Amino acid sequence: MALAIPPAELDTQNQAYFDKCVEKIGFVPNVLQAYALDMAKLNAFAGMYNDLMLAPSGLSKLEREMIAVVVSSINRCYYCLTAHGAAVRQLSGDPILGEQMVMNYRAARLDPRRRAMLDFAAKLTERPHEVEEDDRAVLRKVGFSERDIWDIGAVVGFFNMSNRIASATDMRPNEEYHVQARAPKV
Amino acid sequence: MALAIPPAELDTQNQAYFDKCVEKIGFVPNVLQAYALDMAKLNAFAGMYNDLMLAPSGLSKLEREMIAVVVSSINRCYYCLTAHGAAVRQLSGDPILGEQMVMNYRAARLDPRRRAMLDFAAKLTERPHEVEEDDRAVLRKVGFSERDIWDIGAVVGFFNMSNRIASATDMRPNEEYHVQARAPKV
Amino acid sequence: MALAIPPAELDTQNQAYFDKCVEKIGFVPNVLQAYALDMAKLNAFAGMYNDLMLAPSGLSKLEREMIAVVVSSINRCYYCLTAHGAAVRQLSGDPILGEQMVMNYRAARLDPRRRAMLDFAAKLTERPHEVEEDDRAVLRKVGFSERDIWDIGAVVGFFNMSNRIASATDMRPNEEYHVQARAPKV
Amino acid sequence: MALAIPPAELDTQNQAYFDKCVEKIGFVPNVLQAYALDMAKLNAFAGMYNDLMLAPSGLSKLEREMIAVVVSSINRCYYCLTAHGAAVRQLSGDPILGEQMVMNYRAARLDPRRRAMLDFAAKLTERPHEVEEDDRAVLRKVGFSERDIWDIGAVVGFFNMSNRIASATDMRPNEEYHVQARAPKV
Amino acid sequence: MALAIPPAELDTQNQAYFDKCVEKIGFVPNVLQAYALDMAKLNAFAGMYNDLMLAPSGLSKLEREMIAVVVSSINRCYYCLTAHGAAVRQLSGDPILGEQMVMNYRAARLDPRRRAMLDFAAKLTERPHEVEEDDRAVLRKVGFSERDIWDIGAVVGFFNMSNRIASATDMRPNEEYHVQARAPKV
Amino acid sequence: MALAIPPAELDTQNQAYFDKCVEKIGFVPNVLQAYALDMAKLNAFAGMYNDLMLAPSGLSKLEREMIAVVVSSINRCYYCLTAHGAAVRQLSGDPILGEQMVMNYRAARLDPRRRAMLDFAAKLTERPHEVEEDDRAVLRKVGFSERDIWDIGAVVGFFNMSNRIASATDMRPNEEYHVQARAPKV
Repeated sequence: MALAIPPAELDTQNQAYFDKCVEKIGFVPNVLQAYALDMAKLNAFAGMYNDLMLAPSGLSKLEREMIAVVVSSINRCYYCLTAHGAAVRQLSGDPILGEQMVMNYRAARLDPRRRAMLDFAAKLTERPHEVEEDDRAVLRKVGFSERDIWDIGAVVGFFNMSNRIASATDMRPNEEYHVQARAPKV
Repeated sequence: MALAIPPAELDTQNQAYFDKCVEKIGFVPNVLQAYALDMAKLNAFAGMYNDLMLAPSGLSKLEREMIAVVVSSINRCYYCLTAHGAAVRQLSGDPILGEQMVMNYRAARLDPRRRAMLDFAAKLTERPHEVEEDDRAVLRKVGFSERDIWDIGAVVGFFNMSNRIASATDMRPNEEYHVQARAPKV
Repeated sequence: MALAIPPAELDTQNQAYFDKCVEKIGFVPNVLQAYALDMAKLNAFAGMYNDLMLAPSGLSKLEREMIAVVVSSINRCYYCLTAHGAAVRQLSGDPILGEQMVMNYRAARLDPRRRAMLDFAAKLTERPHEVEEDDRAVLRKVGFSERDIWDIGAVVGFFNMSNRIASATDMRPNEEYHVQARAPKV
Repeated sequence: MALAIPPAELDTQNQAYFDKCVEKIGFVPNVLQAYALDMAKLNAFAGMYNDLMLAPSGLSKLEREMIAVVVSSINRCYYCLTAHGAAVRQLSGDPILGEQMVMNYRAARLDPRRRAMLDFAAKLTERPHEVEEDDRAVLRKVGFSERDIWDIGAVVGFFNMSNRIASATDMRPNEEYHVQARAPKV
Repeated sequence: MALAIPPAELDTQNQAYFDKCVEKIGFVPNVLQAYALDMAKLNAFAGMYNDLMLAPSGLSKLEREMIAVVVSSINRCYYCLTAHGAAVRQLSGDPILGEQMVMNYRAARLDPRRRAMLDFAAKLTERPHEVEEDDRAVLRKVGFSERDIWDIGAVVGFFNMSNRIASATDMRPNEEYHVQARAPKV
Repeated sequence: MALAIPPAELDTQNQAYFDKCVEKIGFVPNVLQAYALDMAKLNAFAGMYNDLMLAPSGLSKLEREMIAVVVSSINRCYYCLTAHGAAVRQLSGDPILGEQMVMNYRAARLDPRRRAMLDFAAKLTERPHEVEEDDRAVLRKVGFSERDIWDIGAVVGFFNMSNRIASATDMRPNEEYHVQARAPKV
């Protein structure tokens, strides 16, 4: 049973944001509904999320979503696996890739860049205190820049946050995610 | 060796923020220096941080800092243990409490409210997928409201993020923290 | 890359079995193809599997498949999660239930019987040496008979075997599973 | 207290099997007594077991028993450690080797082939989702064939099953095993 | 390969101690041979060991040996499991009890006092930072005094030390232990 | 609440020892007060401790204290982290080094010798059963002798003992430690 917190009244800007969600994807993601308990918190969350996942980066949007799912798989976060699993299926046009990120990313046939990226994400999630210079060196070797490493760390960090807020509050994903992008793109 | 990312030029608002840091605490925390690689990211981080740790809440500022340190202790994050350990010492006037949060919060003689709060924080950090309604029930029983539970989850989540960004980028704390508030307040 | 073991020649009985698979579900499951390296091993595996999952039992076929997926989720077995996740979706007519078993069974709203069954399965998978009389007592309390407990243990055991054989040999699921039963039954 | 399940009536074939056990080793192993709750299950178990442990293989019978004990040691299975520990002592004529398999196989002075085999068995038991091509490559390097790798995986899998069924049902080993083959063969 | 450290010359007192070992048990335990690299260290170790395991205590000698084996089982210490497993067999006259302590103490049919004692020993070995007043309360409830709790903690601590020194230095048990007390006392 | 065990009467030698503690450091360490329940135990503990930490060794006193803190950090022992964290600050004149040993030794900029020493200490604490010849070879490569390896193992072992006795008995450090050596030596 999710936390019983009444939503605050949406301010104009966030009302527009929510309207745009409905227009573009047909619904307002439940994580945003949950943060609507407080406009300042909604702004802080949406601001960080949109910068992180959508702003220009050496990581493609798909790569950022792949990291999101791998982190959420380790933390077994039902909300994030559902929502971001759908995003991987959609952005890649490859529903099997989405499933592999949810189940065990090691089963996917990835190029060395993406494999190194996800190995780093897994270690940073499971044993952050053991991440050291050698781990960054592996990323550099497959072509990631200093700034890319920051971005990988930031996405890993963000979903380690979101996974825990979702678990703490029993956040439930919109059912729409489950059916999205199940057929391979041709 | 920290990531070699040149800082962006500070915009006016953030220059003022950094100046105010120097004025009030004598230095700019290295985490802000690190985020200064990009004004949008700096704004997103500082916005979320300040709302989370300073805005009105059913949790006192000290309680939020105690959570920060307990989470960072589990993740063994040198940066956050140093900076937020100092904050616990300062806000509580009790340097031993700060040390206990760093070393093992179970060694502190806490009232049932704070003990339940930190047990929840520890479980949410270590085994987020096992946090369920029963865990929230324990928090309610010691007096936390629905909104307080959100706030606990949000602080736990935030430091699970920060700890990992600090580890990923080898962020190092300002040396000033180490000597702060070592003497008990009288 | 899966093990490069040439299949043995199928004997008449197994040829018929494989033909029946194609007729009924459109393909021969890759696990059977893999065991076709040796007729004795194929017979032993199929014999045990069919008895376990299809013979009369106090556990419904859906319940046995739910256990299969929960065990495979803990062991992160790509093959079994794919094949048996599809089976849960199909038998339950509830694609979301299938996803929850894959992601984190604690997120599903289960009745006490099924929850106890899956908690037992999880503990028996993760910490078999700590399973004791108290754990069986919980199962009895929600209505399972002595024989049902045997059957739960046997299904948990079987998938702890299969998961490891799949990992050891890099067994890959037939792609057909991914699209099966994605739409809720009406 | 073991599960209170009355045995079914033995069919002729299994009565002969049990009689042969008594004749050859002096008793019917309790695992067979336990499976005698249902002739189909007894046949499935005994069929798989006998093929796995006794059929021709690139692995010697002793090697298969060594794997059985190492897996059971990780899962701390009292039944299997007792029964298969005795088998290692007997097949090797080296009681100390049997004890080492039970206690910590790393303490035994093994040739590289057997050490690699047991390291693979340990990893496949503890972290099956991390077993990949590199792990199989190590086995190939010390001389194991593709089919041998299958057999190693199958034995590891089987005892991960048996260990859990024994724990789930509180199966107890026949006391006779404890004294078997305690003296070194000369 | 054990550490290549030449033994120091035994002083008169320790020569007598070693002679007495040979006289009473037929050999000098290898742990004493190892500590003979330095008389001060040998004295410190033997002094603590003899006080701990042989001095009057609310714990019987058998109980202290049972703790020794359970701790060593968790740490998988070949030396201590061998030497102290033999001691449990000998002191109890029950070889099966010795095996159960080595394999999984939960499989033994223990009275509540001994079960609580070994549960405490296991937790203190695996998660010392989580041992708290509640854990001591369980011991008091089954009849242990304050001083008994100290003695339990001291034996658990001691074998957590010995197990690690044995592993660090590849200490090997005298072969004589393996055959000792294998037959039940009548 | 610590164990309620009345101290025995101090014999002359230990009275002198305690007096000397007060004279030299201003107080009697609580661990000695705790062991004063029994003169034989106090002698055994103090004898081993003083030999281990103060006798000539290829390891400097600072190095031995660094190991003490790293082991205690893994075991999260409030007593030992407090007392030996102070010792590292004092012996090194570097309060930040003391904090790093408490928080995460990997954050310290150590030379290869000390890093290898602490990596060995961490592994021997967390996974003693996996310590093997290869681990000793790493120590030899950075210049440690056979005897030095013994000493490292002995210090690691000792604090794995002390940490557990402190946890079992709720031993609390003297408050004086917290303020010691907080300012960097100039």
